[in-house]
Amino acid sequence: MGGAASVQESRHWDRLMAMAALGAIRGADGEPGVNRACLTELDRAARRLLIGWAGEAGLTVSVDAAANLFLRHEGTDPDAAPVLTGSHMDSQPNGGRFDGIWGVLAGLEAVQAIREAGIATKRPIEVVAWTNEEGGRFAPGCMGSMSYNGCKRPEDFAAVTDAEGITFGDALRALLESEADIARRPLGGKPFAYVEAHIEQGPVLEREGLDIGVVTGIQGSRWFTVTITGETAHAGTAPLGLRRDAVQDMVRAIEALNRLMADPADILRFTVGRVEVGPNSSNTVADRAVFSIDFRHPDAGVLTERGDAIEPTIRAAVRNCDVHVLERFHALPAVFDPMVREAVSRAASGLGYGQRDIASGAFHDAQFMVPLCPTGMIFIPCRKGISHNPAEYSSPEQVAKGTRVLAATLEELAAR
Amino acid sequence: MGGAASVQESRHWDRLMAMAALGAIRGADGEPGVNRACLTELDRAARRLLIGWAGEAGLTVSVDAAANLFLRHEGTDPDAAPVLTGSHMDSQPNGGRFDGIWGVLAGLEAVQAIREAGIATKRPIEVVAWTNEEGGRFAPGCMGSMSYNGCKRPEDFAAVTDAEGITFGDALRALLESEADIARRPLGGKPFAYVEAHIEQGPVLEREGLDIGVVTGIQGSRWFTVTITGETAHAGTAPLGLRRDAVQDMVRAIEALNRLMADPADILRFTVGRVEVGPNSSNTVADRAVFSIDFRHPDAGVLTERGDAIEPTIRAAVRNCDVHVLERFHALPAVFDPMVREAVSRAASGLGYGQRDIASGAFHDAQFMVPLCPTGMIFIPCRKGISHNPAEYSSPEQVAKGTRVLAATLEELAAR
Repeated sequence: MGGAASVQESRHWDRLMAMAALGAIRGADGEPGVNRACLTELDRAARRLLIGWAGEAGLTVSVDAAANLFLRHEGTDPDAAPVLTGSHMDSQPNGGRFDGIWGVLAGLEAVQAIREAGIATKRPIEVVAWTNEEGGRFAPGCMGSMSYNGCKRPEDFAAVTDAEGITFGDALRALLESEADIARRPLGGKPFAYVEAHIEQGPVLEREGLDIGVVTGIQGSRWFTVTITGETAHAGTAPLGLRRDAVQDMVRAIEALNRLMADPADILRFTVGRVEVGPNSSNTVADRAVFSIDFRHPDAGVLTERGDAIEPTIRAAVRNCDVHVLERFHALPAVFDPMVREAVSRAASGLGYGQRDIASGAFHDAQFMVPLCPTGMIFIPCRKGISHNPAEYSSPEQVAKGTRVLAATLEELAAR
Repeated sequence: MGGAASVQESRHWDRLMAMAALGAIRGADGEPGVNRACLTELDRAARRLLIGWAGEAGLTVSVDAAANLFLRHEGTDPDAAPVLTGSHMDSQPNGGRFDGIWGVLAGLEAVQAIREAGIATKRPIEVVAWTNEEGGRFAPGCMGSMSYNGCKRPEDFAAVTDAEGITFGDALRALLESEADIARRPLGGKPFAYVEAHIEQGPVLEREGLDIGVVTGIQGSRWFTVTITGETAHAGTAPLGLRRDAVQDMVRAIEALNRLMADPADILRFTVGRVEVGPNSSNTVADRAVFSIDFRHPDAGVLTERGDAIEPTIRAAVRNCDVHVLERFHALPAVFDPMVREAVSRAASGLGYGQRDIASGAFHDAQFMVPLCPTGMIFIPCRKGISHNPAEYSSPEQVAKGTRVLAATLEELAAR
């Protein structure tokens, strides 16, 4: 537990707050949030701040062609595959102070603590800040980790434009030019292991009074758009028996989907979050109802079976309208490696922290590391499970506990 | 049946089509519709056209302070209370060629036919064009008939503005100035009876292959806006058991309302036509769902009992969210007078036309005549029940049959 004991709670918190000043915004109730999109001036400033702290800590900085930024602690065997940790520095447009950036600063603090404890690790440890995880400015997200993974190249995203028409390619080139003083490293790699620290973005750890979530994997997702088409009619005159009412058929469809998606264990996630009705007039029977389905589950079997049942369930439920079901997105679950999970769990136990296994509901860069190396994540509680919002919050004690667990995990993995 | 036999189908149709040219628009599939808002230049032109035809028919024209326009056929007893017929000349913004205007032109054709048949009636017959029935430019509708009724005065509406900021008061003054050559008559009156001809705006007569609907009354209406307030959450992380999902509580509420509103006789009208969800993002649990309720029934008891049960039904159905129910509108049913209903029925029988009793689902100026005098309405079929749409259509034969029934009805009532 040498490294973990050297984690400095106040230094770590002060760095988080210094980062939060870059792109500071206020939420609806005055909460201090962050709006820091990738490859902006604010992002550059945040990266310079990180590079400065890395230098003070004695780490070597390099950047790849996707602008992923690496801070390296050398191992006693410099040729050994490194242990990789990190997350992202960009935020949602109306985001918080912890999502992403904490994982990067936790990596920095953990490695610095290990070094300050005078511990030499066999393997190098690298802290990475992935480019554009959120996808808020340039869609999709996870461009940096996908490029590192090799399933995509930065050039594949070059033509993607932001709201002002600036291309990802131009923004990336400008950022790399501004970091011409930073050593360039080849894109990609083969780490020994990857472990990412992140706020839970859900209420489970807080509700159960636990410090650490040992993440078992990232659940799979299937997203659908359902369009129900009927016929308008006069609300005062058209008999109900003759109507082709899109709202009523939408209600029938959602009812039937609720039965399909019933899960006493409350692991399955099923959300109808978007609804559009047309012509949307109170005294006209609707001829159009469009709704979204966001369905997630950590088990690939459940994801396939129930996801495939969505369209037939809707077709069986509607009475008078036409139905069109479009699957917009389909991602299989990512399962994390027992080696990393066990290292995280041992680290939490050794520090005396309350822990549980937990599946990640949200996406993370970690899922693109799964094909490359043993991968895992560490979750900490966040207040009311809120994220992607200025109200996002974890306490100094909560983040320090997570960082200590990360330090102990990195130390163990880097000794292998 | 003297007057009815003199109804000229082609003259009547040509006048309808001439009126339809004033404000002609095209529907989505090229159907010939009408956009003629009240007190506009187009409305003035339509009124001038009507005044010209009235003059040719030997009728006396007058206008009141609400711009209601009257065409008078004199009776052999000029002091007897007149039989009044008519409807409105304004249209919905995306309206059809028959709603309203047909009732005015049917009145003109019926009276002209009676006169051309050489029939002298004891009572005068007046054809009225009520101001602003639709309420499309100045809300609410039925301003003219409400002012005649006395429950409102034109001054009560003076400050109402249209989309361009023009007040009803200014538009009314300008129109009356442009008709300074027309005799002014006092506002209000005490007719012997009122009968209004109108397209059904529903599919019943067409479906049953009938020519005439003997209208029993106008059903009552209660309109509500329901607001369901929950809490946003991440669709991938928040357990369903902990959510306060506004969409799901809306679905529960509509399901429960469907059970409350069940009506095997299919007389009750219950419509959820407007739905708004917030923040309306596919991967965020909704914290807001607003929906409209349009509930109508011809029986005051049913209207009161089930309408009063709406809020408790919703409150019992929702599970996790807050509920606010606002009643926006409450109109009791209007019941038409047996004298007028029987006269219409006898007229249809005498002409050999298929008929049935029918309740009106839509509002009409007729409901403001109910407190003043025995009142009734005559419905004719319209294609697929469509109205408030360029696709609105009744055939030359269908409108002529309705006008013949109106002529026979007026002749009988004016002889009393």
